[in-house]
Amino acid sequence: MSRQSNRRNAFYAQSGGVTAVINASAAGVIETARANKDRIGKVYAGRDGIIGALTEDLIDTSKESAAAIRRLRYLPGGAFGSCRYKLKRIEENRRHRECERIIEVFAAHDIGYFFYNGGGDSADTCLKISRLSKALNYPLQAIHIPKTVDNDLPATDNCPGFGSVAKYVAVSTREASLDVASMARTSTKVFILEVMGRHAGWIAAAGAMASDERLPIPVIVLFPEVPFNRRKFMARVKRMVREHGYASVVVSEGVRDARGRFLSEQGLTDAFGHAQLGGVAPVIARMVKDDLGYKYHWAVADYLQRAARHIASRTDVEQAFAVGKAAVEFALAGRNAVMPAIVRVSNKPYRWKIAAANLARVANVEKKLPKRFIDSDGFGITDACRAYLAPLMRGEDAPPYCNGGNGGNGLPDYAPLKNAAVAKKLQTGFEL
Amino acid sequence: MSRQSNRRNAFYAQSGGVTAVINASAAGVIETARANKDRIGKVYAGRDGIIGALTEDLIDTSKESAAAIRRLRYLPGGAFGSCRYKLKRIEENRRHRECERIIEVFAAHDIGYFFYNGGGDSADTCLKISRLSKALNYPLQAIHIPKTVDNDLPATDNCPGFGSVAKYVAVSTREASLDVASMARTSTKVFILEVMGRHAGWIAAAGAMASDERLPIPVIVLFPEVPFNRRKFMARVKRMVREHGYASVVVSEGVRDARGRFLSEQGLTDAFGHAQLGGVAPVIARMVKDDLGYKYHWAVADYLQRAARHIASRTDVEQAFAVGKAAVEFALAGRNAVMPAIVRVSNKPYRWKIAAANLARVANVEKKLPKRFIDSDGFGITDACRAYLAPLMRGEDAPPYCNGGNGGNGLPDYAPLKNAAVAKKLQTGFEL
Repeated sequence: MSRQSNRRNAFYAQSGGVTAVINASAAGVIETARANKDRIGKVYAGRDGIIGALTEDLIDTSKESAAAIRRLRYLPGGAFGSCRYKLKRIEENRRHRECERIIEVFAAHDIGYFFYNGGGDSADTCLKISRLSKALNYPLQAIHIPKTVDNDLPATDNCPGFGSVAKYVAVSTREASLDVASMARTSTKVFILEVMGRHAGWIAAAGAMASDERLPIPVIVLFPEVPFNRRKFMARVKRMVREHGYASVVVSEGVRDARGRFLSEQGLTDAFGHAQLGGVAPVIARMVKDDLGYKYHWAVADYLQRAARHIASRTDVEQAFAVGKAAVEFALAGRNAVMPAIVRVSNKPYRWKIAAANLARVANVEKKLPKRFIDSDGFGITDACRAYLAPLMRGEDAPPYCNGGNGGNGLPDYAPLKNAAVAKKLQTGFEL
Repeated sequence: MSRQSNRRNAFYAQSGGVTAVINASAAGVIETARANKDRIGKVYAGRDGIIGALTEDLIDTSKESAAAIRRLRYLPGGAFGSCRYKLKRIEENRRHRECERIIEVFAAHDIGYFFYNGGGDSADTCLKISRLSKALNYPLQAIHIPKTVDNDLPATDNCPGFGSVAKYVAVSTREASLDVASMARTSTKVFILEVMGRHAGWIAAAGAMASDERLPIPVIVLFPEVPFNRRKFMARVKRMVREHGYASVVVSEGVRDARGRFLSEQGLTDAFGHAQLGGVAPVIARMVKDDLGYKYHWAVADYLQRAARHIASRTDVEQAFAVGKAAVEFALAGRNAVMPAIVRVSNKPYRWKIAAANLARVANVEKKLPKRFIDSDGFGITDACRAYLAPLMRGEDAPPYCNGGNGGNGLPDYAPLKNAAVAKKLQTGFEL
């Protein structure tokens, strides 16, 4: 057996909403592959995610210097592009053709390793590609790399991307609350921050972390898991304002009324059929004004929260890198259809390790915030939730800044890659 | 002459909207006063700003340790409370009584130095108190300390508080743009960030700093100084999307149409009679959807931008401290009715110094973004504006974080003061 026959290329793609640390996973994949040049040839990346595989639009990461790959750790967003492109669900034939096309492209470029970096939907896709490759007798190891700010993947203690959003939301809530507290006597009494989280309240829960024993803050959380009760909520706001002079409300974009309707609904849906939300903060603000007459202010963090690499959690960055590295190690160990999962070994001190989770356990399962993490009154978090969240938000990992000499503007010196294209080998195109 | 007769107390108050660095000015005042104990007795602070003077609700800062005052540098919001309380404008008699009351309280506590930390309105108040004290033959030195995120004070090159907001807005725009860029092919094509700035576009201008030669980003700025032209704006958005795949819009809350009406108006006014704004981002987003059909996302930074001490500009923190320190030095040098202004000595390298500005030149004058700072097309900034903004955003000054051992939650360890009350000396109260 020639050495060449062992040495196959890898394909890496980013899927769905990007995060502040997804590129740290990419760095983990690429650096680990480079350290195993005897087994892995080139790492190709899909331009705009899986679309790059379908259209044979591959990026040659071997054109990037070691320094450039090291700096990926600091770059927010998706370095190679990501997409919201769900392999067709309804037309089964069509989906089958898509998966076959992907394997056709893989074969053309001698790709033996498929690393797919995403959430629940991409875990499902990864599993399907793995199964089809077996059916087609095409040797492929498909490894899913977890990523989602929503923290809703099963089989892993937490998801890379989440810790940094949690830190951003907690820090922002703490800072804005100090602002509001100092002016509440004559100005704003209720501040409302809208955060992400369609179905699971993990991100909203992080807002409650703004308050601790050293710095108590009257935070009220509105979870998607708890039906909104206007009367109960107003009573709580009134009590907080009476006791503290003000209240800070952290509301999940996905909060619903007792009948299950989103409090704010733009009426649009994305490619996965999920409702596109936004704008529940002003709805809550108006209610507060109408019911209690308090002066209010509101903020909508939107993409700022998931792109805020400047305040990323060090734990999160390290875990994002670790799952990328482990994915390659699993592949080299012959594993297939697995995902590197984060296992919490202990809380005090916080220790974690990586273990392989079977993809069949991961795909299309949503992990909601457990009941035991939500306060009995439904407006806050329990000590168990605090113990869970705290280590995920711990530590900073500041990016380099442009402060040099006369030209510096004080901005993070984010350095995108060159993203050189790989020459196409197939005669056929593919219509998306 | 007894030593005692030279030694009088000082009063310090924070006014109007707080900032990420106003407490650095407080630290500058208190530390410099402590270093001159032979001349200055205690520094009293007004609880909730000037209201503390009117109601004789004083805070004794001498109860705070040197370490606590040093840490003020890192604390966002107003450490002693601030207020939006305009000394009565209409009932002149009433206002006169308010000023007299303040001097009555000063006399009761042997206050010979008045340090008022705020924007244009407080400069006006500071001047009036100075004049009345002369008329009443009460020896008082009134010094105004500049502070405003709006950067709209005259007689100073820039205002403490602004540099940090500018940095926050530029960093956030850069980060969110990297996120949008990586998903624009199948998802959001236009991202809209609403920022503060009622009448002056200084903060919006900072959004354009997200883009530079090293990292070009298609930013479109909507200034309050430029009447909104829907057709021209849409043409620009369309061009950016065609050329770059996406566009990032930074819109000032104060943007108006050709007839001078705010694009979004909540219909409320604050204590100064200013319209309370908010929510122009969703208005722009809806227009983009209606006119061009692009998928959009929007964020409203609101208080997050002016409270974000974690990403404060080091230049800003240093200048905020310096104007507090200079205020005390001016007082000790016998100055009255002045404000420490920041003078830009050179741009390359950036050098600045503090000089005294006459308060009569400062009060009630608003400095707008000059025409030469706005691009000829009205959607961006000139090189002159970049050269002005860059040094103000330069450097970081990270607060301490709670990362220690097992208990750390990764949050900035912001430490509010004790704020012990000074015993009242007057028999009379004062109704606000």
